[in-house]
Amino acid sequence: MSQMEKSGKLWGGRFSGATDPLMEKFNASISFDKRMWRADLEGSKAYSKALHRVGILATCEMHSILEGLDKVSEEWMSGTFQIQAGDEDIHTANERRLKEIIGTVAGKLHTGRSRNDQNATDIRIWVRESLKELRKHVLEFLQVTVDRAEREIDVLMPGYTHMQRAQPIRWSHWILSHSWPLQRDLQKLDELSKRVNVLPLGCGALAGNPFAIDREFLARELHFDSVSHNSLDGTAGRDFVAEFLFWATLTTVHLSKFAEDLIIYSSNEFNFVSLADAYSTGSSLMPQKKNPDSLELVRGKCGRVFGRCSGFLMTLKGLPSTYNKDLQEDKEALFEAYDTVSDMLQISAGVLATLTINADNMKAALSTTMLATDVAYYLVRKGVPFRDAHGKSGEVVALAEKKNCKMQELTMQDLKSIHSQFDEDVAKLWDYETSVEQYSSLGGTAKSAVSKQIKELKASIGKE
Amino acid sequence: MSQMEKSGKLWGGRFSGATDPLMEKFNASISFDKRMWRADLEGSKAYSKALHRVGILATCEMHSILEGLDKVSEEWMSGTFQIQAGDEDIHTANERRLKEIIGTVAGKLHTGRSRNDQNATDIRIWVRESLKELRKHVLEFLQVTVDRAEREIDVLMPGYTHMQRAQPIRWSHWILSHSWPLQRDLQKLDELSKRVNVLPLGCGALAGNPFAIDREFLARELHFDSVSHNSLDGTAGRDFVAEFLFWATLTTVHLSKFAEDLIIYSSNEFNFVSLADAYSTGSSLMPQKKNPDSLELVRGKCGRVFGRCSGFLMTLKGLPSTYNKDLQEDKEALFEAYDTVSDMLQISAGVLATLTINADNMKAALSTTMLATDVAYYLVRKGVPFRDAHGKSGEVVALAEKKNCKMQELTMQDLKSIHSQFDEDVAKLWDYETSVEQYSSLGGTAKSAVSKQIKELKASIGKE
Amino acid sequence: MSQMEKSGKLWGGRFSGATDPLMEKFNASISFDKRMWRADLEGSKAYSKALHRVGILATCEMHSILEGLDKVSEEWMSGTFQIQAGDEDIHTANERRLKEIIGTVAGKLHTGRSRNDQNATDIRIWVRESLKELRKHVLEFLQVTVDRAEREIDVLMPGYTHMQRAQPIRWSHWILSHSWPLQRDLQKLDELSKRVNVLPLGCGALAGNPFAIDREFLARELHFDSVSHNSLDGTAGRDFVAEFLFWATLTTVHLSKFAEDLIIYSSNEFNFVSLADAYSTGSSLMPQKKNPDSLELVRGKCGRVFGRCSGFLMTLKGLPSTYNKDLQEDKEALFEAYDTVSDMLQISAGVLATLTINADNMKAALSTTMLATDVAYYLVRKGVPFRDAHGKSGEVVALAEKKNCKMQELTMQDLKSIHSQFDEDVAKLWDYETSVEQYSSLGGTAKSAVSKQIKELKASIGKE
Amino acid sequence: MSQMEKSGKLWGGRFSGATDPLMEKFNASISFDKRMWRADLEGSKAYSKALHRVGILATCEMHSILEGLDKVSEEWMSGTFQIQAGDEDIHTANERRLKEIIGTVAGKLHTGRSRNDQNATDIRIWVRESLKELRKHVLEFLQVTVDRAEREIDVLMPGYTHMQRAQPIRWSHWILSHSWPLQRDLQKLDELSKRVNVLPLGCGALAGNPFAIDREFLARELHFDSVSHNSLDGTAGRDFVAEFLFWATLTTVHLSKFAEDLIIYSSNEFNFVSLADAYSTGSSLMPQKKNPDSLELVRGKCGRVFGRCSGFLMTLKGLPSTYNKDLQEDKEALFEAYDTVSDMLQISAGVLATLTINADNMKAALSTTMLATDVAYYLVRKGVPFRDAHGKSGEVVALAEKKNCKMQELTMQDLKSIHSQFDEDVAKLWDYETSVEQYSSLGGTAKSAVSKQIKELKASIGKE
Repeated sequence: MSQMEKSGKLWGGRFSGATDPLMEKFNASISFDKRMWRADLEGSKAYSKALHRVGILATCEMHSILEGLDKVSEEWMSGTFQIQAGDEDIHTANERRLKEIIGTVAGKLHTGRSRNDQNATDIRIWVRESLKELRKHVLEFLQVTVDRAEREIDVLMPGYTHMQRAQPIRWSHWILSHSWPLQRDLQKLDELSKRVNVLPLGCGALAGNPFAIDREFLARELHFDSVSHNSLDGTAGRDFVAEFLFWATLTTVHLSKFAEDLIIYSSNEFNFVSLADAYSTGSSLMPQKKNPDSLELVRGKCGRVFGRCSGFLMTLKGLPSTYNKDLQEDKEALFEAYDTVSDMLQISAGVLATLTINADNMKAALSTTMLATDVAYYLVRKGVPFRDAHGKSGEVVALAEKKNCKMQELTMQDLKSIHSQFDEDVAKLWDYETSVEQYSSLGGTAKSAVSKQIKELKASIGKE
Repeated sequence: MSQMEKSGKLWGGRFSGATDPLMEKFNASISFDKRMWRADLEGSKAYSKALHRVGILATCEMHSILEGLDKVSEEWMSGTFQIQAGDEDIHTANERRLKEIIGTVAGKLHTGRSRNDQNATDIRIWVRESLKELRKHVLEFLQVTVDRAEREIDVLMPGYTHMQRAQPIRWSHWILSHSWPLQRDLQKLDELSKRVNVLPLGCGALAGNPFAIDREFLARELHFDSVSHNSLDGTAGRDFVAEFLFWATLTTVHLSKFAEDLIIYSSNEFNFVSLADAYSTGSSLMPQKKNPDSLELVRGKCGRVFGRCSGFLMTLKGLPSTYNKDLQEDKEALFEAYDTVSDMLQISAGVLATLTINADNMKAALSTTMLATDVAYYLVRKGVPFRDAHGKSGEVVALAEKKNCKMQELTMQDLKSIHSQFDEDVAKLWDYETSVEQYSSLGGTAKSAVSKQIKELKASIGKE
Repeated sequence: MSQMEKSGKLWGGRFSGATDPLMEKFNASISFDKRMWRADLEGSKAYSKALHRVGILATCEMHSILEGLDKVSEEWMSGTFQIQAGDEDIHTANERRLKEIIGTVAGKLHTGRSRNDQNATDIRIWVRESLKELRKHVLEFLQVTVDRAEREIDVLMPGYTHMQRAQPIRWSHWILSHSWPLQRDLQKLDELSKRVNVLPLGCGALAGNPFAIDREFLARELHFDSVSHNSLDGTAGRDFVAEFLFWATLTTVHLSKFAEDLIIYSSNEFNFVSLADAYSTGSSLMPQKKNPDSLELVRGKCGRVFGRCSGFLMTLKGLPSTYNKDLQEDKEALFEAYDTVSDMLQISAGVLATLTINADNMKAALSTTMLATDVAYYLVRKGVPFRDAHGKSGEVVALAEKKNCKMQELTMQDLKSIHSQFDEDVAKLWDYETSVEQYSSLGGTAKSAVSKQIKELKASIGKE
Repeated sequence: MSQMEKSGKLWGGRFSGATDPLMEKFNASISFDKRMWRADLEGSKAYSKALHRVGILATCEMHSILEGLDKVSEEWMSGTFQIQAGDEDIHTANERRLKEIIGTVAGKLHTGRSRNDQNATDIRIWVRESLKELRKHVLEFLQVTVDRAEREIDVLMPGYTHMQRAQPIRWSHWILSHSWPLQRDLQKLDELSKRVNVLPLGCGALAGNPFAIDREFLARELHFDSVSHNSLDGTAGRDFVAEFLFWATLTTVHLSKFAEDLIIYSSNEFNFVSLADAYSTGSSLMPQKKNPDSLELVRGKCGRVFGRCSGFLMTLKGLPSTYNKDLQEDKEALFEAYDTVSDMLQISAGVLATLTINADNMKAALSTTMLATDVAYYLVRKGVPFRDAHGKSGEVVALAEKKNCKMQELTMQDLKSIHSQFDEDVAKLWDYETSVEQYSSLGGTAKSAVSKQIKELKASIGKE
């Protein structure tokens, strides 16, 4: 009597069956990988053409398969495709249906192919097409920032460091500070796309393809830039998935920072911006509330995307070579990260496009203590070494605090008591516009520099 | 003309509407939080009783509400509950339906309550009940290990460190090495349960309940052990979620190690165990393959659970006090982690319960070099300091290697040339059973110690 | 000619040596594990006593070893211990030095022991002692919150949800909302301590101890609560490390939220609190700045601790049974997490203990729109179902907005136009103290409830 | 009496001082950022030249500063630089020393600069130079793989999927499967370098530089490719740090998989490879052990690098705009990740360069069941649809198992009973070399395809 029989007796019905229904559910991927149906059918069409070229399929067989695959495609598009018991994944489902439609010749389609290279190909097609969508959403976000920055370039606001008022800046300068990270994300997305668009089809289960299949033909048919160089790596390499998940993570980290700023700016205490109703919600208890739920979700969902990235990295860590079933974890991570970052980009663009700014409040939040650096620079321009000037400026701040007045209300005598170089022209300092216009070097907050920045950003996203 | 109007003009149709359908989807939680329908209804029933006790609800009003809630419950149970547009979450959906059934008195149910405390209560009920299920699955896994360890206590196998053969051990000892981590997880689960089972209901939106609601009554009604001490913390505290996610993570890390061992032991090279067909799958390309997909998924899905934990921790990090919409991220993390760890526990138990051991292969993998430590101990027992004995034993290994023979094939002269204390009784060393039986201290691999271990494990899981 | 010889020729000097100095550095742990010198010596002392009890050590040998170990200890304490080349870890270093002091009898100390059980024992002792320190720091933080909450219980401030003003609360209630999470961390710390305090000594390399060592004696000598049940698990189990790292992570997540609140409250716009100079820093450029660096570091370092936790979990994932060198990663993770959380607790306590509150600003930030819920409750108390009352209250808010006045400035006619139940007694609503005092249920923000809360917190931390 | 004074009284000595020594330690970065001393001095030299160009520094002042900075540099190089109390970071330390050497003119150096842009510049220079080092180590690893793959191209071994024997492959093909991921890492490193090499100097604290500093001149002086476009983003953008940490993480994930394969291949059961002594260690207890510690550390340290990446991402999440002290967490993460990945690359190269292969064991591990796919292909080549052929091949495997013989030992009658197309030429199948040579499509394991692969890899790393 075998161990297994004995087991059956000992542990009874729970584990004694030839199958475990839970295991079937645990193992199956059709509930989520059906999302790749189109990529799977495209891959099969190209593969059947390649099989024809090496003589595995007769012309009529190829045509039969191609037409059959088109019919399967129509079923998916029209929502009539029926998933059946036994369709454990999208590959099995599509081939099963193909066979029902065209008969046994369908059995030739998988010649020399494995689900390992088929699956890897499907994912890469899916990611490639998804990246195109995401590219559009990033561009849309950038466009909103550029438009808004252009129109509202004259609005000043406090610039903060450490959440403390630091120096006056242009509101547009703040907006654009959230554009450049996304612009870099766009650049990374394009680089990543190259690495995604490498064809694994023809790698077989692990050792390659034994029918001299023309992989470069397959690449052309499926619009891949190149073919993978090593069949072990081709079937099991998932670094493009990890790279995409990290791309999504860093992009959402950028959006989380954008959201954090605006949540704070829309608090009653700051009140710099008011979100459009479409992006706010009320309270079930407090009638006066208008909450920035949209931005809080953007901030919070950053964690979700990061979780998918870190989770998949853990799945990859220490995995032996070639295909292991652990890799099936790639798809749900991809799908959820894609959906989330896609939504977050669009919501963020929508929030920014529709919020109202309260320019008066921004202006009112400027205070002359924010010009303390300018006081130091005033002395620097008169030849005082910066370190001394910085100290003297600090004394001016302290004196005003002590006299409970604003810096500009200090008398000339007060100022001269601190440093002899203070003179009547100091009065010109107490103007926020003047302060801002000093920062005319590249990247600064002067109007000319911000305008140049807008021009560069437009150029980088292909608008002028 | 307001900024918003201008925005509308500038960015056109995309963002100009009073609502953004994507935002509605982004914001809504009904698609997943409906899973808590039962907890939500239970909470409302208890709350309506409490409102009655403080005179907000008349007796007939309370009865009307209770009966209405029961009807809603029946709809959920029978699958006839219809989610409608506007049902953004389970709380709204249930109250909307209640009102349809019983009319305007339904509008009294939410008095003094907020979705903040309602939601927190629902989650805690859901987690509490889920922990009970997980407890059963952990116990089942432990039971399988105990049963198997008891039956197969006489089987010896190589013990490995660094994946290198180290010393002979009992197969049961290996099994049990995977029991104790899970036994500790059980202990942690019980501790966590206490922290979950603290009632937030009556905390309102943030400040508390203004109708002198009797929260201890609510706790008794809903089988909570205690009530939260601070309403800000009560509505927004989610450390119990993070704690659960970590519990799930560490449990799955334990299972990933169990899976790794068995995957390696089921390789052709080790061939110590054969998985039951129910937990293996074949290859679409290679007819001879029998792959341990079940265990690979167990190993791989550890990443998924960890991802949920790390993602939610990131969501929590740096969040301001009280409820922020970011917290809505708690539920999908919880649900997926629960489903995954629940499956993984059951699959792991099933795999272990049904695998066949190849005891002959285990035995054949024992080699006398694994007794090198015993050679050292032989000398130690004759008074040689261990450090010297260890060196001498190394010389024995080296000499056997040099002579291309096994250690037991060395002549007495050979041995004496290494250390004079070697004598004829050395022959007793070359027996794996003898070697194993030395380790009779608590926790060791001798039969008596393993039996004691089994007894302790049984006791700790309430079986004897 | 062997492959290795050929390798030597091919790759030349770089890799041809019998050793690789980089590998020696990569492999060695003495640079960090020396921190456990005391635990290592204590463990050895206990072990030598146990060896004496089973006759491996003569009495004089034991005494010689104990005295030698004490001398080694003195060298560490006085800073004169010299680490030498070859001392790859603390165990080797200590035994090497012991031998120099007492001679060859030192070679008997390691009998039946392995670095695997020795190392696991050292870490557990180190963690156990570290938890005691952390316990003190958590208690100190809690004590500061209790003291401050007691003294400033009469100060009101806006309570926020979604960073929007919601309802008036007591400042003490806010303080205490950060106490309870830490109080739970204290509870968890105590639970964790039990799991740490399980003795692995006597597990050997993996199979156990072959000299019938009395592990319960060892446990008593070293103040452990119990001994590990399975030698494979005992030597290689590191879930207590992961559990500690998660403990530290969640504790620092709590502190990150505390820091976030205070950073926002210390912004110029909120200006609710002013940090003491000791916990603020200035700017190298802007003389007027006073930055809450202390709190920003608390917020930021949460990431570091989480990183150690997630990194170590990845190291554990999928690791085969028993000791693998990967586990050496445990110590630096532990040490850094301990140091960081220890600092963060103390800094957080210091910041809270020394900050100045600006009670006038808190009061000024209360606005009557925050009483909108109270308007709804007013109607509820007159019998209006909450849902209707909530709607009517919303109309009051809207009307005041439309008339550009405060709610309390609306005429009785205005109010009656919204709901006939409004009457002169509505005037009592416009008082923040009255509003706050409604929330007298357990956990609410009324003075009585907050006082009760303080009492409970004191009790839970052993003060009354 | 102020709150703070009261605090002092209440909480006593612990927190009453004007400073908290722990806070000074907590806040200071000099203990680790001194590592950037060279970058800091280079940045200052360039900045002093730029100040001269805009007239802030006279020529003699500039020369004085430049010479002074060179002297400071010499002190660092010779190890004589003395860090003093008050040197909280490298910027402060260097400027303090400069002033000691050249006097008050040193106080002009920081004009218009902030530690925010200075620090960001230092880090970018440091990362840029570090990437050059890592580039060399990646190339060295790739070179070792190419060399070894070329020399040992004739060695066959089992290819595994799911850790089960699948199809015969070339050992070189396995080696190269670990080259391509690293080759992609090299590509990513180059892309990342572009994003690192963007100059922040001239961004000031946040608003820009008010002295019309020529940032493009600075960029040329410091060998940067471009200047940052937005001063807020320039001072506080740290996505290049996150991107580097992810680069390091994915590279170490690749190495962890390489390590896992070799650890398994060096087990007694596989015994395909033997590590050189330089990369192995022994056991303190078991004289016969030779453990692959080097590879285990490579596998385990992947977690550490990932931890730094995930920790820093958490630090970044939800951070408000511009500089916050949280960002100080960037440096230790960078330094540790760099050191670790640098070691791991070199150790991995060393292990691969020096290991001995046991080609006979690899060959012996090939079994004819691994040719089952070839049996199916045999029938395919005779016109049988693959799905049928796959089924028939399965029957052959099963029959051989049933008859307890190898497939090649089945009689022609046996085979014909399964499918009539079996004929005498089936005998040609039972040759591993023949099997391998089928896979001649691009990326396959045939000798021609592997040779082509080697050529491509060499080309991609600049060797031919």
